[in-house]
Amino acid sequence: MKTIQVGIIGAGRIGKIHADNLMKLANVEVKSIADLFADEDLNDWAAARGILNVTKNNLEVIQDPEIDAVFICSITDTHVPLIMEAAKAGKHIFCEKPVSMDITQTMQAVEAARINGVKLQIGFNRRFDHNFKRIESGVKAGEIGNPHIIKITSRDPNPPPESYIKSSGGIFMDMAIHDFDMARFICGSDVEEVYARGAVLIDPIFGKYEDVDTALITLTFANGALGIIDNSRQAVYGYDQRVEVFGSKGNMAANNDYPNTVEISTKDSVYRDKPLHFFLERYNAAYMEETSLFIQAIREDNQVAVDGNDAIQAELIALAAKLSIKLGKPVKLSEALGLAEGG
Amino acid sequence: MKTIQVGIIGAGRIGKIHADNLMKLANVEVKSIADLFADEDLNDWAAARGILNVTKNNLEVIQDPEIDAVFICSITDTHVPLIMEAAKAGKHIFCEKPVSMDITQTMQAVEAARINGVKLQIGFNRRFDHNFKRIESGVKAGEIGNPHIIKITSRDPNPPPESYIKSSGGIFMDMAIHDFDMARFICGSDVEEVYARGAVLIDPIFGKYEDVDTALITLTFANGALGIIDNSRQAVYGYDQRVEVFGSKGNMAANNDYPNTVEISTKDSVYRDKPLHFFLERYNAAYMEETSLFIQAIREDNQVAVDGNDAIQAELIALAAKLSIKLGKPVKLSEALGLAEGG
Amino acid sequence: MKTIQVGIIGAGRIGKIHADNLMKLANVEVKSIADLFADEDLNDWAAARGILNVTKNNLEVIQDPEIDAVFICSITDTHVPLIMEAAKAGKHIFCEKPVSMDITQTMQAVEAARINGVKLQIGFNRRFDHNFKRIESGVKAGEIGNPHIIKITSRDPNPPPESYIKSSGGIFMDMAIHDFDMARFICGSDVEEVYARGAVLIDPIFGKYEDVDTALITLTFANGALGIIDNSRQAVYGYDQRVEVFGSKGNMAANNDYPNTVEISTKDSVYRDKPLHFFLERYNAAYMEETSLFIQAIREDNQVAVDGNDAIQAELIALAAKLSIKLGKPVKLSEALGLAEGG
Amino acid sequence: MKTIQVGIIGAGRIGKIHADNLMKLANVEVKSIADLFADEDLNDWAAARGILNVTKNNLEVIQDPEIDAVFICSITDTHVPLIMEAAKAGKHIFCEKPVSMDITQTMQAVEAARINGVKLQIGFNRRFDHNFKRIESGVKAGEIGNPHIIKITSRDPNPPPESYIKSSGGIFMDMAIHDFDMARFICGSDVEEVYARGAVLIDPIFGKYEDVDTALITLTFANGALGIIDNSRQAVYGYDQRVEVFGSKGNMAANNDYPNTVEISTKDSVYRDKPLHFFLERYNAAYMEETSLFIQAIREDNQVAVDGNDAIQAELIALAAKLSIKLGKPVKLSEALGLAEGG
Repeated sequence: MKTIQVGIIGAGRIGKIHADNLMKLANVEVKSIADLFADEDLNDWAAARGILNVTKNNLEVIQDPEIDAVFICSITDTHVPLIMEAAKAGKHIFCEKPVSMDITQTMQAVEAARINGVKLQIGFNRRFDHNFKRIESGVKAGEIGNPHIIKITSRDPNPPPESYIKSSGGIFMDMAIHDFDMARFICGSDVEEVYARGAVLIDPIFGKYEDVDTALITLTFANGALGIIDNSRQAVYGYDQRVEVFGSKGNMAANNDYPNTVEISTKDSVYRDKPLHFFLERYNAAYMEETSLFIQAIREDNQVAVDGNDAIQAELIALAAKLSIKLGKPVKLSEALGLAEGG
Repeated sequence: MKTIQVGIIGAGRIGKIHADNLMKLANVEVKSIADLFADEDLNDWAAARGILNVTKNNLEVIQDPEIDAVFICSITDTHVPLIMEAAKAGKHIFCEKPVSMDITQTMQAVEAARINGVKLQIGFNRRFDHNFKRIESGVKAGEIGNPHIIKITSRDPNPPPESYIKSSGGIFMDMAIHDFDMARFICGSDVEEVYARGAVLIDPIFGKYEDVDTALITLTFANGALGIIDNSRQAVYGYDQRVEVFGSKGNMAANNDYPNTVEISTKDSVYRDKPLHFFLERYNAAYMEETSLFIQAIREDNQVAVDGNDAIQAELIALAAKLSIKLGKPVKLSEALGLAEGG
Repeated sequence: MKTIQVGIIGAGRIGKIHADNLMKLANVEVKSIADLFADEDLNDWAAARGILNVTKNNLEVIQDPEIDAVFICSITDTHVPLIMEAAKAGKHIFCEKPVSMDITQTMQAVEAARINGVKLQIGFNRRFDHNFKRIESGVKAGEIGNPHIIKITSRDPNPPPESYIKSSGGIFMDMAIHDFDMARFICGSDVEEVYARGAVLIDPIFGKYEDVDTALITLTFANGALGIIDNSRQAVYGYDQRVEVFGSKGNMAANNDYPNTVEISTKDSVYRDKPLHFFLERYNAAYMEETSLFIQAIREDNQVAVDGNDAIQAELIALAAKLSIKLGKPVKLSEALGLAEGG
Repeated sequence: MKTIQVGIIGAGRIGKIHADNLMKLANVEVKSIADLFADEDLNDWAAARGILNVTKNNLEVIQDPEIDAVFICSITDTHVPLIMEAAKAGKHIFCEKPVSMDITQTMQAVEAARINGVKLQIGFNRRFDHNFKRIESGVKAGEIGNPHIIKITSRDPNPPPESYIKSSGGIFMDMAIHDFDMARFICGSDVEEVYARGAVLIDPIFGKYEDVDTALITLTFANGALGIIDNSRQAVYGYDQRVEVFGSKGNMAANNDYPNTVEISTKDSVYRDKPLHFFLERYNAAYMEETSLFIQAIREDNQVAVDGNDAIQAELIALAAKLSIKLGKPVKLSEALGLAEGG
């Protein structure tokens, strides 16, 4: 079996996770890693793993004729130009979410991949979580009939630092975008209208950047179902990631994952340890699986598991949510798109 | 201790439950029961319980000088005139929800009780449910800090018959009104704005009466918290009644009640029996407690547990929800009130 | 329907529970209550309930020609003579467990009831618990095939006072006897052999009376199944009452009952309130049901739900367990009986 | 960091798991694999992993001067001679359980490792399970006070084939031996006395080999605690692996692991998928951790996590259990040892 050579662009936490996961796959090699701030530490990190090339130059990776695929894990505003370059160079592309803050640019990037005949997979890793996959396959198999109400709870354990908030694109584009993709995934239908309500209840810093730290988002799906997402930037008990689908024949609900099943009864209460702390613990296996499926799609020339349209749809919902907060009323995805294209 | 004499008006299912619960209390007597359709069966039912008077004439009960309190359990459009009469006659009043479909009339009825110095308790029985009481007292005690997000799931096992749907006042006034009261109860704050989204997914009959069978209602509370209620007229697995409050220091979630704790593992799955089927099973003890507290409030001349303002607030939310669906945008309670008073 | 007149013998906690439950039943009257230590308080208690006769003389109750049935709730060593008297007087008998500490006397009492054609029901109230009934009916219906392993956990929240320990008959006759009956009930088979292991781990006072406070009892059933019971006199988290049956087609496990379903997540843990505290809370409904079924058995001349043989079998197991501890080896029920009869 | 070279002896399922886990560790190399039945398939398997040497000759591995440690994963009766050889050759040893069926030989093997100053770790992988580790550390930290009652449920999904039963050494030495080690591990104390009760309820084939398929084992610990283990060769719902410790200050209970947290409510029941099917799924991470800790013990010259005495103690309990069944009475470990040494 031919070895697939991969280059990583962006050596932050998530770029390193992808690199480590790629190296667990048979006949896959991480040849290069590019990072604008590549330093001695990164050299050591790469050396310990046998990654030969460390560079500050993204193009060096993209234009390497030996490289088959690139993982774009750099900051968001570099994604579109990198996708364009990589597509032109004929590389398959795995890109972290969101593709961009500008939906028209996202569309151009997706189009570039299509035209150049390269695969483009988006990093919506939660689709590969054992719990949510079970829900999705159950819904698809009709285990609970037609979906009527989709409920997603998605809360982070801690708010990010101010530096991150500033350039995050806001709670919808940065955090809830995973939930927007999840909503479409488990409902099996596109979203048509969005109503978002937000509040600054955790830290006034969010208000400073016209962002919110707490949000409720109501979704109307093309198949008639309704959806509700609740987000918070700070759940003191850890990462709260639950999904529920109510349908004509029943209800499916995924609870959180816990580090163990132990229940302790004392004179005060019956307790257990808190849920898995954050995304690295909770979605560890999901990250592995998305990477494995991307490689498999390349090798077998299959469709990728999460494609460019999935990026576009999730970004459109985020855009509509942002608009909804601003206008204080529900916003159709078509309106949001019209405004974006007209803007 | 003086015996309190009670008269029941309306001998439907709920009137009979109240009668039976009253008879379990020490020093309380159900003297009379009035029902427009009183018949041989009702006579037998009353005789078996030692209830002396059965009548078709509500006023006979209200004007009986020996009677201290009346339970108004007749159809909704009789509530307001009965409250007015009972208040004038100096009787304490327990009234089923909603007080009326017309908020200005509800306000008049509440005012009549106030002026005449009689107690008026509203039948929001769910406040006395063991699970929801635990949530409310935990929130009040600061167990999870300040509330940020209130979530209520409230789904019936079966849709009512067409005859009921027709005159029900719609899902918000008939069914969700319990959830509106619950939202205020557990959040400890009034609601300011409502956005409702509905769908007809279970039976087109609901559409015929400009009603919906599935609904999501977003609430904004005066204290800054956000709320979300999801309703369905048909959960095939039974009565789904869950509440969750997320706050600055944690999360409290009440699951459904089950007939037993038995878990059965077989070659196919690990299963348990379905939740308690409907309100009679689930809220059995809650009905008893609301009645007991009403009698206690009379005896000790205390404030009632659920007062006229609670009725007004819940009805206002229902009104705003109805308007929100019609207008396709969020509606403030003040707007809803203005429209109602102007109309 | 004819009113059944009942007399209560023994006005302790359990006698009063039975009295109150009897009064909730239609066409049942508690006419008399006898207690050696009847005093002003008992008079008041009876007066508040409309119980006409309070006496220190048990025979007055037993020999009252108007009385149909007696509830024997006095101390254990009075049970057998009272059963003999009541049987002679033609009264139906409900007797608390154990019938006696002496198996041959228990047998005589059971025989007396049989000969005189009166019903004798034993107070093994746990058979009527919602969870355990579900297990028993599931096992009987073949939901998990043939039972292979029966597991019972039965732990009290607090050890009794020394005065009680002294005359309790020991952990097996006093406390585990409920579990012995439960084992037969859910397995649907008699016990043939017993091996018991005990320890004094909670309070040395138990050792002073040649008793233990912690015990494991292995049972061998006639149908080939094996059973294990674990007992403790002190579970600091409350009343621990669980049952599990493992069979050829699956497993059924009943967990504890809780005062509510609320789960609270904080920065420290995910917790819930402790289980229902003790037998009054946990078996409240079960007490009601056993009483109701006893009255029904009288009225319809049916077999009682728990008969004299059930008392004999449970006492025999207790006897064998006691012997097993003493001898340090397993003991057959037939041996235990032989020794008792020979003694 | 120096690379540690490892040789695997026995290329069955468990040998291959260890090889794969070793290869995930940094600076560890699997140099050789020996199996009496090494064939083309094994050659392919090794080649795909870059394992250089495949041999039918165990000694070739043991005597290779480059090899630092051996994993003994061959059939039980080869363990002792291989340990003796490896110890003599100065190799560190990881040996699967049980070390042997003959306690005196096990002692000799353990002694050989000690004398030759090599590490000997026993494959009691369950100590590294996330749930059981949590229990053990909680008990050790005093989270529930002094342990009073240890309860272990350990049931396999399917009985092994006749060929395996024949030479398995019986349920105690083959299957329950894991539970015997677990009991000592979580109780933090040695076992002094054993009473075992067995039955053939699943397949008469077990009886043919004087074995049982269902067992209850009562343990008495040196610290005064009592223990109970229940085993079955066939739980149709999958691998049932639960542990519970009851103590003076509370109770800790580990439930099974499940493939997901999804709960599905339908018109029939509320169900979830069955527990993780068997040891490969359930103890996957535990296998990784025991291997990692063994390598770490070598590298840092620390004590191994599970030592020779742990093997001896577990085998002694198994021996006593076997004797107990035969004699129909409880057996002290000292008696079992005396008999074994005298035999």
